[in-house]
Amino acid sequence: MNQTIDEFSLISNFFKELTGQQDVAVGIGDDAAIINTTKDHQIAVATDTLVASVHFPEDATAEQIATRALCVNLSDMAAMGAIPKWFTLSLCMPKEWVSSEWLQGFSQGLARVADQYNVSLIGGDTTAGPLTISITVLGENPIGQSLCRDGAKPDDIIYVSGTLGDGAAALHQLLNSTLKKNDRLIERFYQPQPQIDLGIGLRAYASACIDISDGLIADLGHLCKASGVTALINSQLLPIHPDIKQAHSGQSRSWALTGGDDYQLCFTVPLNQQADFEYWADSNNFDVNAIGNMIPLDHNQDYLKIDNQKVSITAGGYSHFR
Amino acid sequence: MNQTIDEFSLISNFFKELTGQQDVAVGIGDDAAIINTTKDHQIAVATDTLVASVHFPEDATAEQIATRALCVNLSDMAAMGAIPKWFTLSLCMPKEWVSSEWLQGFSQGLARVADQYNVSLIGGDTTAGPLTISITVLGENPIGQSLCRDGAKPDDIIYVSGTLGDGAAALHQLLNSTLKKNDRLIERFYQPQPQIDLGIGLRAYASACIDISDGLIADLGHLCKASGVTALINSQLLPIHPDIKQAHSGQSRSWALTGGDDYQLCFTVPLNQQADFEYWADSNNFDVNAIGNMIPLDHNQDYLKIDNQKVSITAGGYSHFR
Repeated sequence: MNQTIDEFSLISNFFKELTGQQDVAVGIGDDAAIINTTKDHQIAVATDTLVASVHFPEDATAEQIATRALCVNLSDMAAMGAIPKWFTLSLCMPKEWVSSEWLQGFSQGLARVADQYNVSLIGGDTTAGPLTISITVLGENPIGQSLCRDGAKPDDIIYVSGTLGDGAAALHQLLNSTLKKNDRLIERFYQPQPQIDLGIGLRAYASACIDISDGLIADLGHLCKASGVTALINSQLLPIHPDIKQAHSGQSRSWALTGGDDYQLCFTVPLNQQADFEYWADSNNFDVNAIGNMIPLDHNQDYLKIDNQKVSITAGGYSHFR
Repeated sequence: MNQTIDEFSLISNFFKELTGQQDVAVGIGDDAAIINTTKDHQIAVATDTLVASVHFPEDATAEQIATRALCVNLSDMAAMGAIPKWFTLSLCMPKEWVSSEWLQGFSQGLARVADQYNVSLIGGDTTAGPLTISITVLGENPIGQSLCRDGAKPDDIIYVSGTLGDGAAALHQLLNSTLKKNDRLIERFYQPQPQIDLGIGLRAYASACIDISDGLIADLGHLCKASGVTALINSQLLPIHPDIKQAHSGQSRSWALTGGDDYQLCFTVPLNQQADFEYWADSNNFDVNAIGNMIPLDHNQDYLKIDNQKVSITAGGYSHFR
């Protein structure tokens, strides 16, 4: 009944290079991992699951899937301002892939991202079944310095990192085989860049933060709802890459507002911190853009207005099982 | 693309009663949970995934599945001597079940176990796809007191808790519809009893510990391999419930040795601690039985001998994707 692939032969063999032992008292191969934390820190915990042909195209390579799976989880750490340190992997895959190159490619993709972000695999299990990857990332934050969604106040300036709509544009190209692929976009899709360093820096400036996985409207909507404020967005200020504006001029604004898979940060900074923050971001070469500001929640509970038009925060985004 | 069911409407609505906030600074509804740990403790982390019709029969109820999923994970905490405190849930399920009673039953099963063992749900995600449940449990241990697999020494006494073979006997009854069901066994299957209190007590006595999920031979084999010792087991000493001996006399010994799903603890106690340990166990009504002892690893690297016959530690058990 317990058709678990033995973790000694699989997790240990295929994922050995991922198990750097920073603060790990007991690593892979026991019933649980044991990690040592320092007394001044909190632990941040985030879980995300990717399902074949739901969260990635069917022809995605094992390396692409692994890369994306870990990056998506690391993005949650960035949104909390946490330093990611450890992760567990639950890998459910067709039985016949065990001895194939697939597993090799998967572990290589995972190892590359784990190395880049200095996170250690501390446990996991592998099971026969339809391809599903569930990752739990653990990170550390100084006590009381985590970035949450519920701290935005009226007058705060709303920022986003990077460019918006890249994820949706990439998906559009991936799903339409006749379209010419843009290498930058395809890389952005399979290897999102979790904004870890920005998140850590934002502990000193941001009043609230969220990562954009389901689209700006949906995710900023979550932030506004948690904070009890209304966001006023100026669509002229949305950062959209020139490539997308040029190739997909008709769709670029919509993708920037509702497209998922960008994994940028959306955050708020109090007005009186704006100058200091922008000086800091500029000095450290962080690509951030102000796109609007918060006002008190209006009496209709409209959480979001774009160019003064109210927007349903559940209408956009890719969530809700559509 | 991100067909994530919105965590606000699902995790919050269906699993609210599970989110007791012990030491949780930020709970469900942000990008990650934030937990506070005390400075004298380590964090234990374990992950397990259950897949429909692989890890539970197709006609299992939602409540049975949830109960089993969480108990199996808690058993890993017991094996480390850790106090389970928090867990995350990744639930992948068919789209059409979202609004059904299934989710209600699932959350009730989870809530009952979470309440019994005083663990809080701190995060998770829900995705459309084939039914797969991945749970990551986090627990705490005083620094340096975790029970590991690699500490057994020659002359240590080998113990198991409870009775062995119940899981296999239950599965046998579940898979053969013509057989009369034994209520005790079916309950044992769907609601294993993670030996949390025993695990915590064993910190003071045990040199090594593992939970029996894949069968005694496979799991004790892991312990022997990690510790570099050989186990001598006397099969006459295996604790088998009278019900099973009576109803399945031909299979009971084999089930006790290689049947999975028992979720009892197998552990070793140094010879000079045996009397103290047995007095303690007896005083606290823990049902434990000595089944053999360790000797130095023999030159053939036979990790396990039963009634002086050597046994392949990979031959038994339910692992390896059969």
